[in-house]
Amino acid sequence: MGGSISTAPPTTATSPAATNHLASRKPGATGTGGTEDRPGQLFESKDELLAASLKERASAYVATLLPPADGGRSPRERILYVFEQVEVQAEAPEFQGCRYLAVQIELKDQSHPASRVAHQVKENLTAFFRAEAEQGGADDPDLLARQLSLVFDGASARAGIQADTLTGLITPTVTTLLDTAGVR
Amino acid sequence: MGGSISTAPPTTATSPAATNHLASRKPGATGTGGTEDRPGQLFESKDELLAASLKERASAYVATLLPPADGGRSPRERILYVFEQVEVQAEAPEFQGCRYLAVQIELKDQSHPASRVAHQVKENLTAFFRAEAEQGGADDPDLLARQLSLVFDGASARAGIQADTLTGLITPTVTTLLDTAGVR
Repeated sequence: MGGSISTAPPTTATSPAATNHLASRKPGATGTGGTEDRPGQLFESKDELLAASLKERASAYVATLLPPADGGRSPRERILYVFEQVEVQAEAPEFQGCRYLAVQIELKDQSHPASRVAHQVKENLTAFFRAEAEQGGADDPDLLARQLSLVFDGASARAGIQADTLTGLITPTVTTLLDTAGVR
Repeated sequence: MGGSISTAPPTTATSPAATNHLASRKPGATGTGGTEDRPGQLFESKDELLAASLKERASAYVATLLPPADGGRSPRERILYVFEQVEVQAEAPEFQGCRYLAVQIELKDQSHPASRVAHQVKENLTAFFRAEAEQGGADDPDLLARQLSLVFDGASARAGIQADTLTGLITPTVTTLLDTAGVR
């Protein structure tokens, strides 16, 4: 593990999409330049490396989940689109669930740089749900966004640990929540 | 970590309740007697130690979640009882979510002894939901049991990583699913 730090320093390059979707990094924590083998310094670099890796992947991840902006879908269809993507992703044999959930569970430290990145990616998804819920006329857009986020995480976690598949599960669940919230 | 293996070997003592709720252990994997420092052997002991620890805690964990058998509650109330307990547990500052979900996410190996124990604990909860759903007249007890398990894991995961609280979230979500399934 230690060897990979010196050969693969965290990059500060992020795409514009990722920048929009993610929290800004902490000031002064953006590189390994001048780092000697002081334990504290090395550990911070590892944390930052993980955070940078998650951040770099975030825009691609979000792109696989969210519907295209000009797709002509209704808010209800746009919400369902996200869950259809999760269902497809979960069918892959190597699927292990959402890494932005997993990293926070594994680190058990919400102040860790990687947890912060992951937290922000999750918040952005909730914000997407909330905006669509409001656009779709939900009685309580905040509640629906929280419910959809809960279903998203529960579904990807359970599929990731092979506790369940998502077939015949995620669509009826989301549909029930959308119907109850009055999103047509 | 290594030192704790020799001072705290996995015990084979489990309460009757735990035995009922959990999968049996693999034959021949119940002790550390005669173990030298062969790496493979030590690693197996660590795996088994974790599995035994989870198994020992399972009956206490289940007891905190499930309603008493003679509580006079309806199936709907018994299902809601479980989620009320999760909501209470999630209010504790040290709450980090369900450890039986977390261990499977962290190990990423469903054949690991600890994953098997955790998987069985989860399956027992789903079986509880299914039995109550059927008793309560659910249109599709299998679907409702899967939905409730998904909500359980999603809720405890999100509360555990402080992505959300469960207040005003878990009860309306479960209520919606129960109503839609026709469980009175």
